[in-house]
This record gives sequence, structure tokens and C-alpha cells, in this order.
Amino acid sequence: MSVLVVGSIALDTVKTPVEEHADQLGGSASYAAVGASFFSPVNLVGVVGDDFPEPEFEFWRKRGIDAAGVERVKGKTFRWSGEYAWDLNTRETRSVALNVFEDFKPALPENFRETEFVLLANIAPSLQSHVLNQMRRPRFVVADTMDLWIETARKDLDALLPRVDLLILNDSEARQMTGDTSLIRAGRAIRRKGPRYVAVKKGEHGALLFGPDDFFSCGAYPLEDIHDPTGAGDTFAGGLAGYLASSPADEIDFGRLRKAVIYGSVLASFNVEAFSLDRLRRLTSEEIAERYEMFRVMSQFEVLP
Amino acid sequence: MSVLVVGSIALDTVKTPVEEHADQLGGSASYAAVGASFFSPVNLVGVVGDDFPEPEFEFWRKRGIDAAGVERVKGKTFRWSGEYAWDLNTRETRSVALNVFEDFKPALPENFRETEFVLLANIAPSLQSHVLNQMRRPRFVVADTMDLWIETARKDLDALLPRVDLLILNDSEARQMTGDTSLIRAGRAIRRKGPRYVAVKKGEHGALLFGPDDFFSCGAYPLEDIHDPTGAGDTFAGGLAGYLASSPADEIDFGRLRKAVIYGSVLASFNVEAFSLDRLRRLTSEEIAERYEMFRVMSQFEVLP
Repeated sequence: MSVLVVGSIALDTVKTPVEEHADQLGGSASYAAVGASFFSPVNLVGVVGDDFPEPEFEFWRKRGIDAAGVERVKGKTFRWSGEYAWDLNTRETRSVALNVFEDFKPALPENFRETEFVLLANIAPSLQSHVLNQMRRPRFVVADTMDLWIETARKDLDALLPRVDLLILNDSEARQMTGDTSLIRAGRAIRRKGPRYVAVKKGEHGALLFGPDDFFSCGAYPLEDIHDPTGAGDTFAGGLAGYLASSPADEIDFGRLRKAVIYGSVLASFNVEAFSLDRLRRLTSEEIAERYEMFRVMSQFEVLP
Repeated sequence: MSVLVVGSIALDTVKTPVEEHADQLGGSASYAAVGASFFSPVNLVGVVGDDFPEPEFEFWRKRGIDAAGVERVKGKTFRWSGEYAWDLNTRETRSVALNVFEDFKPALPENFRETEFVLLANIAPSLQSHVLNQMRRPRFVVADTMDLWIETARKDLDALLPRVDLLILNDSEARQMTGDTSLIRAGRAIRRKGPRYVAVKKGEHGALLFGPDDFFSCGAYPLEDIHDPTGAGDTFAGGLAGYLASSPADEIDFGRLRKAVIYGSVLASFNVEAFSLDRLRRLTSEEIAERYEMFRVMSQFEVLP
């Protein structure tokens, strides 16, 4: 089954204490679509300007990403620039230029509206709802969000939540949304706002998954060399949604969600190994399978004979 | 097999945003000894003043803790007082009075020197070495430490490390000791200083275990209500060492260390549910077994049929 991915497509300039790269492919939908593409075909929805590099369309095509929903409009592509602190755990936004993204109002190609799996990557919740309004009857809807929307678009976000099967947010956002310092209580409280499942990302510490009757605590794959954390959360969401869509015959139960969280973590762990999407561009399915297995072994409580 | 536990024995006054309790049993050896006692007999070494409450000796006796190594000297017991911030993640020391602990120079009872397992709970590394010097031929030595010793007693600590089988420290201490922000690189670098195994505690995020060829990432047991984080690390170390000593016939391999880390985490998760050692005082082996199983299930990647 395919996954419809909607979100931002940007050209990012990222500075770490070690390196700086300018105008590289970025944005929530870029990372999410490529992350999902390792498991399922992707229908991509977004907007780019007339300065957007043509070869990226070819890259998407090769990865099974249908860019029929990517509008190309007159003007400049969304630009974001950020700088990471020495430990790569915190970052400062240096500049944002929305450009063509400012008037983004996604209109789905007719054949995209039947897509069974939907990933609303991080954009304004009103746009996320606007996309859902155009979908026929999606089987499973995943939504990502961020602190900005919790702060400035809370009403829109609250209206979206009951329409979402799985909400993804990070630990500080979960605390911000609920005013509760306990992530366990926060995760449960967010479920009561509508989503059947909630995934709380904890950066270098992994992720928590909350379901109606179950709970899963997933560590993070240990990395020695992190080059660029940008897009880790988007890649996580993409890998997760792509995996969910990959075996449509299977029931989407907690066991499947659990594995989706692990595959999302694995994809994110690769993504941070290089700038922009550079690691994902050369990633193979064999590498994913190998890392999944290493991750499983290093996380198990009892080594089975 | 027995575990020899040496460390501080204190009367703590702890304030959280919700409660305050004065002059309750505390200190690294108190938590560690009781944590270990759920798995193995304990030989306890420490010092208390003549104001130390007599009933605590009876409590130790009932828990299989031999207090023949606890000196009772004229003067006041070590006092510590601390206050936790609103999220219980950071704390400030309000006062420290070393009292009789100031001149603590542990002299082991003759029959303690043969103990096969040793837990050097958090005290000055010179005292930890002084205890090791009195041991005949311990089979496995676990040492805990803290930022204070990394900062002020680095030479003593470096001299101790090659004599230790497993060093326990927390994430910020691992970074402090190595100057490396990556916990993975830090854990490996600390192993090169001597200990065969290194356990890095990450508070609410679990623990990492490094061995010669293996790595284990352990989540934390999710808790909704934390009342007093004091002693969590000491209880972790105690549960870990007690479990290691509990089946002396077994080889102490990575699989066994892995389970020891999990049992340490389980014990610590109980300890924070109440002030001082109050939760450990009423804890049962059945509760430990039940939580271990819940923890295992919520951490597994693939649910086995």
C-alpha cells in the first residue's frame, strides 16, 4: 500500500561545530517521504519554488516517490537555516524564509485521495486537517507536530487529534501539551485527546509508544558519530508510516506499531550519520535489516538460545 | 554468595515540591545493602554515630544484612539535606554534616574479608581502595562513583579503576570523566581505563551496559508517580550486585550482567515510589518478579508466541 506524505520541502543551511552545508534538501516531507520509501510507495504533497533543483525530482522517482502532488510555483523555495550547539542536542534557528511555502494550500491530485495510509508530517495543523478533508477514507493516519503549533495553533491541533490514529511528538512537546512532567502521564493524557496511539520521541534516549492497553519502551540505537540531527524526527515518522503500510494484509495491532517504532528509530539513526538526506540517499534495505537485528539483540532482556 | 557493601550511612532530610521528611535513613550503603538483600546475604561496612536509631539494626538483621562491619562511634551520624526542583530531575544540597563519617576508615571484620562479591558504593575512591586492600580474593568487584570524585580525587579514582570489574556512573559523569559528549564513545573510553564492564545510568531514560564485545541498552521502567529520587542510583547498584552474587555457580558473562542491570533498574524503580527506604522496607520478592516480567514485555521488540 502507498503512503501519502504531506509537509514542508525546504532548502536547509545547517551549521554544526564541525561543518556547514548550504541549500541542501530538507523539510519535514522530504525526510519523511524518503524514510517511508524504504518500505512502501509514497505519494508526496508539497510545494517548491522555481529555484528547486531538478535532480531531486529524479531522486524521488527512483525511490518510488510519486511527486505529482508537489507543486512548482514561481518564487523561491522555503529556506531554513540553523546552528547546533557543541553537543548537537540543542539548536538555534538562524533564519527562516517561508517564500512559496507561505501560501501553501495543498490540493491533492485526484488519484492521491484514495491512499490508505497518510502521514501528516510537521506543518500547521490547519493544513494537516485540510489534507485530511480531501482524503476518501484513509485506513490509518499518522500526524507529527511541534512546539510552535502547540503554542500558537492549539485550537487547530485539538480539532485534528480525534482524526488521527497515531500522534508523534517529542518529550518536551508532550510535557508542554499536557503541563505534566511525567512522560507516562503525559502520553496517556494525550491519548485521551483523541489519537488511539501516541509516540513520544526522546532523542538520543529512544521513544515511548502508548496504546489503549499496551505500552512499549524503545531505546535509541547507539551512535558514536552524529553529523547532523536535522530531520531525525521526520525520518522516524516516515520510516514508521512506511513500515505500517508495507503489509496491508496484517492487522495494525500494537505488535505492528511496536515494530514500526523500531523501524522508524533505525531509519532516524542512519539519517543523522550525514548532512541533509545524504545518508538516506545511499542507504540499502540490507543495512536496515542488519541494524534492526543488532538493535533487537542489544535491547533484549534475555538472550534466547 | 554474600556481597560486601561499603559506603555511607546517613540520616537524610529531603524536601520535594510536595513533601519534606527529616532524619530518615539514607546514605549510599543503606540503599545499596537493602537493594542487594533481596537477592543475596549482605555484609555491611560503614559508620554511624551514637544518635543512630537502634531499630535500623533490627531492620538490617531481618533482611539478612550482617552489620558486624558497621562501627558505632561517639558523635553524630552523617547528615545530608537536599531539595528537589519541581520536575524532580535536579536537586540542590542544602547542607552536609559529615560528623562521624569524616574519620571513617573502614576496618573489615575478619570473616568479611573472604566475601566473593564486593560493592564499593559511592564514597571517596581512596576509601574504596582501602577496602579492596583488605579483601582476600574477591570474585567480582562493582564500584559506584560520583562527579565530586571525578573532579577532586581523579588520581585515586584512576588507581582504583583497573581493580574494578564493573564501574557504575551516570551519564553526565561519564561525559565529565572522558570529555566526550557521545555516551557510546564515553562508555568505551572508560572501559579502556580498566573496568571490564561499565554501566552508565541515564535516570528516567534507563541504562547502558558496555562489555568487551557486547552492548546492552536498557530502558527505564515507566513510573507515573515519583516521590523521592534519593538513593535510586545506590539501589540500582545494590540490586545489580545482589543479583550477580545470587547464583555463584553461573558464569558471570554478559547475559548475566544484562539481567543484573535490569534487576538493578527494577529495584531503583520501586525505591523512588516513596521517601527514604520506605518502599524497599515493604517490598516483596513477588513484586520484583512481577515488575521484571512487565518490564521485559514492554521492552521486547517482537512479541513471542
